[in-house]
Amino acid sequence: MRGVIMHSPGHVSVQDRPDPRIEKPTDAIIRLAATCICGSDLWPYRGANDVHDAPMGHEYVGYVTEVGADVRTVKVGDFVVGSFMASDNTCEICSAGYQSRCVDVVGMGGVGTQAQFARIPHADGTLVATPEPPAEDLIPSYLAASDVLGTGWFAADAAEAGPGKTVVVVGDGAVGLMGVLAAQQMGAERIIAMSRHADRQALAREFGATDIVAERGDAGVAAVRELTGGLGAHSVIEAVGTQESMMQAVRSTRAGGHVGFVGVSHGVELPGDKLFYSAVHLHGGPAPVRRYLPDLLQRIADRTIDPGKVFDLRIPLEQAAEGYRAMDQREAIKVLLTL
Amino acid sequence: MRGVIMHSPGHVSVQDRPDPRIEKPTDAIIRLAATCICGSDLWPYRGANDVHDAPMGHEYVGYVTEVGADVRTVKVGDFVVGSFMASDNTCEICSAGYQSRCVDVVGMGGVGTQAQFARIPHADGTLVATPEPPAEDLIPSYLAASDVLGTGWFAADAAEAGPGKTVVVVGDGAVGLMGVLAAQQMGAERIIAMSRHADRQALAREFGATDIVAERGDAGVAAVRELTGGLGAHSVIEAVGTQESMMQAVRSTRAGGHVGFVGVSHGVELPGDKLFYSAVHLHGGPAPVRRYLPDLLQRIADRTIDPGKVFDLRIPLEQAAEGYRAMDQREAIKVLLTL
Repeated sequence: MRGVIMHSPGHVSVQDRPDPRIEKPTDAIIRLAATCICGSDLWPYRGANDVHDAPMGHEYVGYVTEVGADVRTVKVGDFVVGSFMASDNTCEICSAGYQSRCVDVVGMGGVGTQAQFARIPHADGTLVATPEPPAEDLIPSYLAASDVLGTGWFAADAAEAGPGKTVVVVGDGAVGLMGVLAAQQMGAERIIAMSRHADRQALAREFGATDIVAERGDAGVAAVRELTGGLGAHSVIEAVGTQESMMQAVRSTRAGGHVGFVGVSHGVELPGDKLFYSAVHLHGGPAPVRRYLPDLLQRIADRTIDPGKVFDLRIPLEQAAEGYRAMDQREAIKVLLTL
Repeated sequence: MRGVIMHSPGHVSVQDRPDPRIEKPTDAIIRLAATCICGSDLWPYRGANDVHDAPMGHEYVGYVTEVGADVRTVKVGDFVVGSFMASDNTCEICSAGYQSRCVDVVGMGGVGTQAQFARIPHADGTLVATPEPPAEDLIPSYLAASDVLGTGWFAADAAEAGPGKTVVVVGDGAVGLMGVLAAQQMGAERIIAMSRHADRQALAREFGATDIVAERGDAGVAAVRELTGGLGAHSVIEAVGTQESMMQAVRSTRAGGHVGFVGVSHGVELPGDKLFYSAVHLHGGPAPVRRYLPDLLQRIADRTIDPGKVFDLRIPLEQAAEGYRAMDQREAIKVLLTL
């Protein structure tokens, strides 16, 4: 089969890779219907993480082609969506809703789903099938559920977005935009998107943002305070992962408010005294997307939400290198790879 | 009147200070029935904070002797308890339960309640009167409510201690011990106190600890994991404020669990990646003790709890210097100053 390999920072190609096969009786094999490039794939692309001839990709939707002997809940032919973290969905941590930290978790990044086929560990725990094969135009939205929608949803949930709340979203990448959508669906009264890019501001407004703040740092904090009676927001979503974005988030939150942080943390050191006196709640990490999948798939099937809009460039898998370049250069928010 | 002054680190004396007077119509003056020395007073005593001829003390119980023209809810003669943070209890932040971050907050440390009399700002918002003058033996417990009990209670609440939960308490000072008591009152199934001191271990058990872990660092984390099926605790109270104690707390918590941190943060830098992958909830800061006072005073009046036991040394105000020395040397857990 064909699949993406990142040879070194900035160097991506599509190569022949071995077809995946059932390795454990709890595995399934899927034929990808679509896959995509994640903002977090840019960390190794930009040299922030080590990388050497690694298969890439952890987002996926597709059709089951084979199941292991112990698989019970999905069958050949099902159209399925799974999270970027494969989980048994039965352990004590999964049962508490933290499937991304399952005691038997398998990161799908190691599998590499920017490919024609993929092996899905813990198929019963990981995959959720749609009731029927999806309309072609819904596939991008289902694909979004695999990571960015689920991650933005978790961030909004961790930030306790809801009726009567003012929500700030720090980060205008795909996850931040999905955070806007999630906050809107959760009934937030006001959603302030922090963005300096006109195209992303427009998409944020489409997803439900009521206000845009283009400033950052002290000026950004001041702008949020201005919009919130001097107190700061009730709920803040952090979707970048840098020192600046984390402090932007903490400082934009009122005492007793909630920060949901999902940007993969790089080089962040949170000053304890600032956190102490902020009196905010802080919760985040790798999103337990599996927790939300049944609900998200229903909202997509019902056409209540259209998260697939976040893909503003669609190109064939064979042109993955161009997709990475476009995302790195911020020419695209998120790139869908067709198969 | 007589009151404590800290001249410089390690140098405390009791001096004549001006009698307090009503400065704003919302003030009250109280005659202290008892006061005490806080673990946080040891930070300047040990040179970790700057200090120069400062009045000391922020914990207090006593009798109202005078009220300003606008005071409505307390009257001369009432026996009252207040928090170490004076708050209006009407602003949006107070209404959300974060009185320690009231928009008009006044820190009582600046007032200095290790004295015969004290001015209490925002008297209506800050003070809670007992229904009748308390029995003499309950005064230490009411005094504990002013800070350490309320702070330990907030920590247990922030850590979401409750039925079915395993709670770890990091720190065996007065606040940690009050955290044990709070977790027990909230119905926690198992309470693991981390302590290396036999006398504090004994008091922790008296307050409700079911297990003691004497190890720290990696060995402490391993011991907690051993006691929790390898997963870590649901709820962890941090009551120290150092880098070591914060990381001990985060690392002792299971994914999706809750850390309530109330140790005043000194020199702490939380590594973002560790926090991200821990997937814990983190909440803390200066405890909004006022939120809990009515409930706590009732439990004390009913003799349901006996937090006053945390005072293991009682000496006259005039001997405050000896009290500081004893706490600094860990000869006493917490020192009550009689008047």
